[in-house]
Amino acid sequence: MSGYTAPLKDMRFVLNELAGLGDVANLPGYEDASPETVDAILEGASKFASEALDPLNYSGDREGSVWSDGNVTTPKGFKDAYRQFAEGGWPALPFGAKWGGQGLPKLVATVVEEMVISANMSFSLCPLLTQGAVHALELAGSEALKKTYLEKMVAGRWTGTMNLTEPQAGSDLALVRTRAVPASSAGHGDHYLISGQKIFITYGEHDLAENIVHLVLARTPDAPEGVKGISLFVVPKFLPNADGTPGERNSAKCASIEHKLGIHASPTAVMVFENAKGYLVGEPNRGLSYMFVMMNAARFGVGLQGVAIAERAFQRALAYARERLQGKDLLQGSKTVPIIRHPDVRRMLMLMKSQTEAARALAYVVAAAMDTASRTKDKEEAKRLQAFIDLMIPVVKGWSTEMGIEVASLGVQVHGGMGFIEETGAAQHLRDARIATIYEGTTGIQAGDLLGRKIAREGGVTVKGWLEVLKGLDQALAKSADADIQVVRQRLAAGAQAVADCVDYVLAAAGKDPNAAFAGAVPFLMLMGVVAGGWQMARAALIAERKLRKKEGDAAFLAAKIKTVRFFADHVLAQAGGLAVTVTQGAGAVMALPEEQFLAA
Amino acid sequence: MSGYTAPLKDMRFVLNELAGLGDVANLPGYEDASPETVDAILEGASKFASEALDPLNYSGDREGSVWSDGNVTTPKGFKDAYRQFAEGGWPALPFGAKWGGQGLPKLVATVVEEMVISANMSFSLCPLLTQGAVHALELAGSEALKKTYLEKMVAGRWTGTMNLTEPQAGSDLALVRTRAVPASSAGHGDHYLISGQKIFITYGEHDLAENIVHLVLARTPDAPEGVKGISLFVVPKFLPNADGTPGERNSAKCASIEHKLGIHASPTAVMVFENAKGYLVGEPNRGLSYMFVMMNAARFGVGLQGVAIAERAFQRALAYARERLQGKDLLQGSKTVPIIRHPDVRRMLMLMKSQTEAARALAYVVAAAMDTASRTKDKEEAKRLQAFIDLMIPVVKGWSTEMGIEVASLGVQVHGGMGFIEETGAAQHLRDARIATIYEGTTGIQAGDLLGRKIAREGGVTVKGWLEVLKGLDQALAKSADADIQVVRQRLAAGAQAVADCVDYVLAAAGKDPNAAFAGAVPFLMLMGVVAGGWQMARAALIAERKLRKKEGDAAFLAAKIKTVRFFADHVLAQAGGLAVTVTQGAGAVMALPEEQFLAA
Repeated sequence: MSGYTAPLKDMRFVLNELAGLGDVANLPGYEDASPETVDAILEGASKFASEALDPLNYSGDREGSVWSDGNVTTPKGFKDAYRQFAEGGWPALPFGAKWGGQGLPKLVATVVEEMVISANMSFSLCPLLTQGAVHALELAGSEALKKTYLEKMVAGRWTGTMNLTEPQAGSDLALVRTRAVPASSAGHGDHYLISGQKIFITYGEHDLAENIVHLVLARTPDAPEGVKGISLFVVPKFLPNADGTPGERNSAKCASIEHKLGIHASPTAVMVFENAKGYLVGEPNRGLSYMFVMMNAARFGVGLQGVAIAERAFQRALAYARERLQGKDLLQGSKTVPIIRHPDVRRMLMLMKSQTEAARALAYVVAAAMDTASRTKDKEEAKRLQAFIDLMIPVVKGWSTEMGIEVASLGVQVHGGMGFIEETGAAQHLRDARIATIYEGTTGIQAGDLLGRKIAREGGVTVKGWLEVLKGLDQALAKSADADIQVVRQRLAAGAQAVADCVDYVLAAAGKDPNAAFAGAVPFLMLMGVVAGGWQMARAALIAERKLRKKEGDAAFLAAKIKTVRFFADHVLAQAGGLAVTVTQGAGAVMALPEEQFLAA
Repeated sequence: MSGYTAPLKDMRFVLNELAGLGDVANLPGYEDASPETVDAILEGASKFASEALDPLNYSGDREGSVWSDGNVTTPKGFKDAYRQFAEGGWPALPFGAKWGGQGLPKLVATVVEEMVISANMSFSLCPLLTQGAVHALELAGSEALKKTYLEKMVAGRWTGTMNLTEPQAGSDLALVRTRAVPASSAGHGDHYLISGQKIFITYGEHDLAENIVHLVLARTPDAPEGVKGISLFVVPKFLPNADGTPGERNSAKCASIEHKLGIHASPTAVMVFENAKGYLVGEPNRGLSYMFVMMNAARFGVGLQGVAIAERAFQRALAYARERLQGKDLLQGSKTVPIIRHPDVRRMLMLMKSQTEAARALAYVVAAAMDTASRTKDKEEAKRLQAFIDLMIPVVKGWSTEMGIEVASLGVQVHGGMGFIEETGAAQHLRDARIATIYEGTTGIQAGDLLGRKIAREGGVTVKGWLEVLKGLDQALAKSADADIQVVRQRLAAGAQAVADCVDYVLAAAGKDPNAAFAGAVPFLMLMGVVAGGWQMARAALIAERKLRKKEGDAAFLAAKIKTVRFFADHVLAQAGGLAVTVTQGAGAVMALPEEQFLAA
């Protein structure tokens, strides 16, 4: 079985050339992100991912996490790997020094996270959720809460969860029923008693850490109905003692864990709260807005899962394609050759490689924007960048995860019959990838957010600004003498025009016929992804061309990058026109069928 | 969990209006296929599928077939269901009366098979493989072999297998190594001793029937190398006694069964032959050509799996979308509504429904062509139809199965988080569907067959003939006053043009640069599928319009059909232009990357 190798050359190229690590490192507070430090971090993370996490990926899938009497045992090796992960300081990477973090840019943490996910997606979910919980507490928690929880969570000694979903409340959090009744008692101070059932709680129970810090959405007795009556609470598994050690067991219990298609090692808990002690985070009834802040980070993290799983599936398929002998070369062949010589296998590998690189580039560029938005002293720039980030988060989440499924499925296909056999490992990537278009908001939810909140609500200002950026790039591309880059330019321009047409359509439709605007939301999101990915790929091609001209860098890698970009243009960007037709002309047919005519038996 | 209901209205519409059951029933030998008989068969099959097979689908997946000491036990209930299946005469449906068959058209058998697969894909594979073996024996077996085996196989008492693949010989059968040494002995007459290992043998061992008839590809000692030295043998599990009962156990043993992503109930055997007694089928060294004949039938059958699993996934998603309450209606809403009211869920359901109907229509039309080609007295018509069938088999196989995966994955998506939970059942359809693009020749193999053997080799005669048929349809569509049909016409014409462009490109490239011709083979196959599906959908819309005008038939169903066709045009046919760009301009980038640049670590 092939092992994971961090694609460091591409990661560094994207980091330095596209995402601008140099500029990020010049931001206040990021002085530590020197090229040497970042290099050392990437090397260390790469080693940890390949040596500690990757070997547990297949066995973790086979074994799964196991529930027994309220406790969850993670697969063999996970506990030790998590200990190493915490001891290595990896959970602390993106957090501020105040709570023991390393204060490194989101951009650098993103690269490390990609490696961790590629090596072991199930494992990676525990730190991802913990990160979200830390963000929520940083954002809205009282000083007392921060003091009690943050240091331990940043150190990875305690982990975090997000308790949103209930059986009747999934995408629609207005339907949350969990109750929070104010109480007070000696030793616990003012608190709330939380009662209700939460489902789909990732790492809701496990054996990796000393304590689990649940962030729970619930309603106080006097709360208004709907989303405006939801508050956020901290509900620890063990109530902290005065000295900060985990004390009395809280009545937050794991009733069972789910039997899932993939991510078997990651326990997905049904949590039952019975008068569990909880502490209000921030103001009452503002829980959903706090959650949305951390959800943006979580959505970005899930988008990164699409990239990471695609990379892992690609590497496995590539290893097989190089080694499996079958068929003759179409041109020279009397000898049986590795299947990578066959055009269709090559096409699949290029589709995997080029889309993975495009999605990676987009994700890292958005991460760099987050760093700049949060640290720049230029308030206008921060505002502009935040709008860009908000626009792109649903694209990174929705498009990269749909791409992740496609690429993982191609990975199975490259293996032929062996791909269907679980021991090969390719099928696991498909099963694991399949969740990423669902949790933290389905692709449909992302697309609705993109069209509604991020475009229609502001009259398309930000997306039109981005289209102007694409025009600027078009002019730069026009100056290239490279024939491949000229084709890329042509397809990117067609893609940008397709986006512009769709934006006009959506802005016109949104007010008068929301169904017509939203019927094409997902094809529009996919179009945005294809064009945004194409944007970064076209930039990459131009930079590669310039560096080749100046004889800088690895010439073979740079030449390959231009060819990969050309492939992306012909095989992925070429879909743009069709998607635009669907968005702008296909809405009517979506709602045309009477409900009772869907199945005529 | 939602049950399977045969979509009888659509099946009958396609059968009668598009595939022309009336004309098929007028062919010599198909007189029994009267409307009443066919109706009774469909009702009976629908009942059997829903009541006997569907309830075993989920439990069969959970339990799986189990190997122990060379024996395989199928999941609980399978043995009894198979007994009912055989007693009901279902295996005999498509075979001639000579061996006890019912002599019904392939077209009718196809509808029944769709139901069986929808209800239980794992179960359906046993009769599918048996059918293939019966065809091979009918085609090339001696009278003695036919007499010994066919009656029992047609009755379903003995089942059949196809033993092609070996560890080193998958898509490339030239690499087959299994040996067949001539021998002779009292009681067994002239036979061969077969030795070798075969893998991926569907129902290679099981407990459903009295005997298993393996058809095995092997080489005789003096055989030429490569595909021209492969012969076909019958190797029964139990050597038949003189009275036809199963006798001595042959040394064809099941060494293990695979642990697969899906179709868990269907045992996929590793078969070991150690001087097993085998009987030559037809002439030596012609095994592959016999296999190809039965492979066409098998490929059609696998294509049908794409349709059937898509239908099942659609029905499950539809049931959930009608019952799951979440979110408000975009137009009128203060109340929480079933998610089928939301445009994106509706879009997914329409994508599932319209593509399933398109692929079904294409498959049934090809089945009807098989019936006519085999029974018509007009030799020119038979030849023309056979060429059409040969052209369309890889499309039915490749496109319908890729579509099946897409639709099954959409089915998971419609369920949101519940789709990822195995108990929901949606994930099983995705896992089951995933094999269909692989076995009986991957999509890449189908696409190569389509471009090479079916188009380039004959200078595109048949595909150009089909494009003329599309032109005729275009003229008929032009006469419609229906606005939806006018849009359908426009998109179908663009699709046909896209096919024509690709055919010109391929014919020009095939001779001088095969890599360039074949680099876009799969996108071309997908284009052919989309346009061929669109062809049948456009015919359906025209027929529905005519019947509505004449006030014939179910008006609500017919109106819904036109809307479904319109959706297909805007959301599926709209992809045609992008696919053509990829085929005609994207080949260069496929082979451009040096092999060592695929992974730059």
